[in-house]
Amino acid sequence: MVQKNDEHLTGTSQRLDELREGIDELDSQLVELLAKRAALTTEVGRIKADSGVPVYVPEREKRLIASRRAQAEDSGVSPDLVEDLLRRIMRESYHTQNNRYRCVNPGIGDVVIIGGNGALGKVFVSLFRKSGYTVYVVEKEDWSTGSASARLRVADAVIVAVPINITEQVITNLTMLKPDCLLADVTSIKNRPLTAMLKAHNGPVVGLHPMFGPDAPGMIKQVVVVTEGRDPAAYQWLMDQMITWGATLHHSKAAEHDEAMAYIQVMRHFNTFVYGEHLREENPDLETLTQFSSPIYRLELAMVGRLFAQSPELYADIIFDNPDNIELLQRFHQRFGDALRLLEAGDKQGFAERFSRVGKWFGNYSNRCLVDSKQLLLKADDGQLLRK
Amino acid sequence: MVQKNDEHLTGTSQRLDELREGIDELDSQLVELLAKRAALTTEVGRIKADSGVPVYVPEREKRLIASRRAQAEDSGVSPDLVEDLLRRIMRESYHTQNNRYRCVNPGIGDVVIIGGNGALGKVFVSLFRKSGYTVYVVEKEDWSTGSASARLRVADAVIVAVPINITEQVITNLTMLKPDCLLADVTSIKNRPLTAMLKAHNGPVVGLHPMFGPDAPGMIKQVVVVTEGRDPAAYQWLMDQMITWGATLHHSKAAEHDEAMAYIQVMRHFNTFVYGEHLREENPDLETLTQFSSPIYRLELAMVGRLFAQSPELYADIIFDNPDNIELLQRFHQRFGDALRLLEAGDKQGFAERFSRVGKWFGNYSNRCLVDSKQLLLKADDGQLLRK
Repeated sequence: MVQKNDEHLTGTSQRLDELREGIDELDSQLVELLAKRAALTTEVGRIKADSGVPVYVPEREKRLIASRRAQAEDSGVSPDLVEDLLRRIMRESYHTQNNRYRCVNPGIGDVVIIGGNGALGKVFVSLFRKSGYTVYVVEKEDWSTGSASARLRVADAVIVAVPINITEQVITNLTMLKPDCLLADVTSIKNRPLTAMLKAHNGPVVGLHPMFGPDAPGMIKQVVVVTEGRDPAAYQWLMDQMITWGATLHHSKAAEHDEAMAYIQVMRHFNTFVYGEHLREENPDLETLTQFSSPIYRLELAMVGRLFAQSPELYADIIFDNPDNIELLQRFHQRFGDALRLLEAGDKQGFAERFSRVGKWFGNYSNRCLVDSKQLLLKADDGQLLRK
Repeated sequence: MVQKNDEHLTGTSQRLDELREGIDELDSQLVELLAKRAALTTEVGRIKADSGVPVYVPEREKRLIASRRAQAEDSGVSPDLVEDLLRRIMRESYHTQNNRYRCVNPGIGDVVIIGGNGALGKVFVSLFRKSGYTVYVVEKEDWSTGSASARLRVADAVIVAVPINITEQVITNLTMLKPDCLLADVTSIKNRPLTAMLKAHNGPVVGLHPMFGPDAPGMIKQVVVVTEGRDPAAYQWLMDQMITWGATLHHSKAAEHDEAMAYIQVMRHFNTFVYGEHLREENPDLETLTQFSSPIYRLELAMVGRLFAQSPELYADIIFDNPDNIELLQRFHQRFGDALRLLEAGDKQGFAERFSRVGKWFGNYSNRCLVDSKQLLLKADDGQLLRK
């Protein structure tokens, strides 16, 4: 009996080994397939750069995915699985297979990126260079030697990509530019830098806020907020160039942009700051907290933790920059106190009513958030992200 | 000249079409490959169920990924791309190719899931059934007819999976169980349900908190918190069964668990509730807010929005349940006021110093949060998640 069982186990384990070899063989074919696909998309990238066809063609992507979803359905494979895989593969092609872009305005001479060695500055340096422009980087140390001024005096386009706390100061010094030089900044607030640029320089001016981190694969599918300064016709080429890079432009007034930003950058980050302070003072065991780890719990904690891996000065600047922010935060504090009184009074029903009222205000958006965040948590789990 | 250009464009567009056909052909092969792979993993699942080999074998997964990463490296393909794809594919196999699990304790008769038609209850019903147990569901309407009591009187295991606000009340009524019947609950708080279970029933008792949403693919790779009640030897089979389902068990004291939960479930959700109230009263244009959409901005807003797509009563119960929570929230409110005074005084440096201090408290964890959340945002972007 024991022997028979052993034999059975041996047979089982042999069959398991065979199946695993089969799986490994298929996975190996997957890698080969990816290598072949990369060769094709690299050539597509080259042709697009030469002919000026946009890198990102939403319709092509949509058709490509729809065909494979249909095929998956027919083959008994999950269409969502196929779509997820294709999107991940396409991210990689966008990221790695665009070494060149069409140069929209070959007439432009020197492009100077002030702060071009910074995280966001580097993205612009790289994109301009891949498009055949002559790019110079100006950093802090170049000002004292006079080399900065020399570069800037002859530039046809200047992009300010320095930290937010010195943006205005740097702009104020840009009085040596040629009259037709294009001046732009890429700061995450827009009103004050734009005002400063219009004051320092009489030529074309535009304020940009690229809504992506330096980890994004270039500018493909990313939103860039554009706030008009002066002479849009003279900077239209830069807009076209960013579209060539794959960006979606969102035109806005500087004040409207800054107001919207206050709700997230200021309100949410300040709140997260206080939450971090609170945790530090309550001093729970962080190890224990992370062990009780449902995906949403981990994400909530990660959203707090991530803030404190970043520059204290950056967030101080963002939060302290605008006096309007103080009043907004004071009102939040007030409302927190109001909600607390519901709790102190044990008014569960009052809480639930307010909760529903907020839900109504959010409308359909909150449902989409829930669906999307669940999807996102599954993706986090695939990659063992947010885990210990 | 115009004609030549046209010819050139025609040539270009022909070549692009050819390349795109080539890409489509490879993508089609990808779908075929997935179908073949699914056939193999389905057989693996069947063999594992029959022989009792665990569904999730971390070492096998590790080796599988390491081999393909190495191959990718050799073929000039991104190893991270390959790993991401494989993990997504494996999620799918876990999700769909486990129709049977080994039955750890065939001696167990009826398993009754109270609230088995609810989201989490369904997961347990399905897992028990796939493991060959006889499962009955008891719902609200079964109590008045007496059919609930009849079922429960003869059950060998009873799992309470009802909403948090009626958990204790339901448990209090469970006085008819057989002396050796196993009683467990799956509520997200543990102290009070556990105390109620020990009081209502003299047999084996255990408190469980499955740390995953109903969207998770079963229990594979998920954490279940286990809080000991009474007679662990008598419920060991359930622990082994959950391990067979792929779970990782995390043993904890009920009080320790509830305290850790307070920091996220209570603190963070209450705070998010106030933030939602605040937005509703400030009434910014939600459309505009979402248009200014950097990935992290979208995620921050989604974390607020998602709360309000859920049950007001559920969150009222979680937050109002424990009087200790009030004091914790009062201290948060106090600290928010303190931080506000820094802002009112324009004390940027004080803010930055506190910020750094919190960063130190978080230690390495905050860096990992930043890295992981950036990865996660890239994944969100692949799937166009959190976008309009």
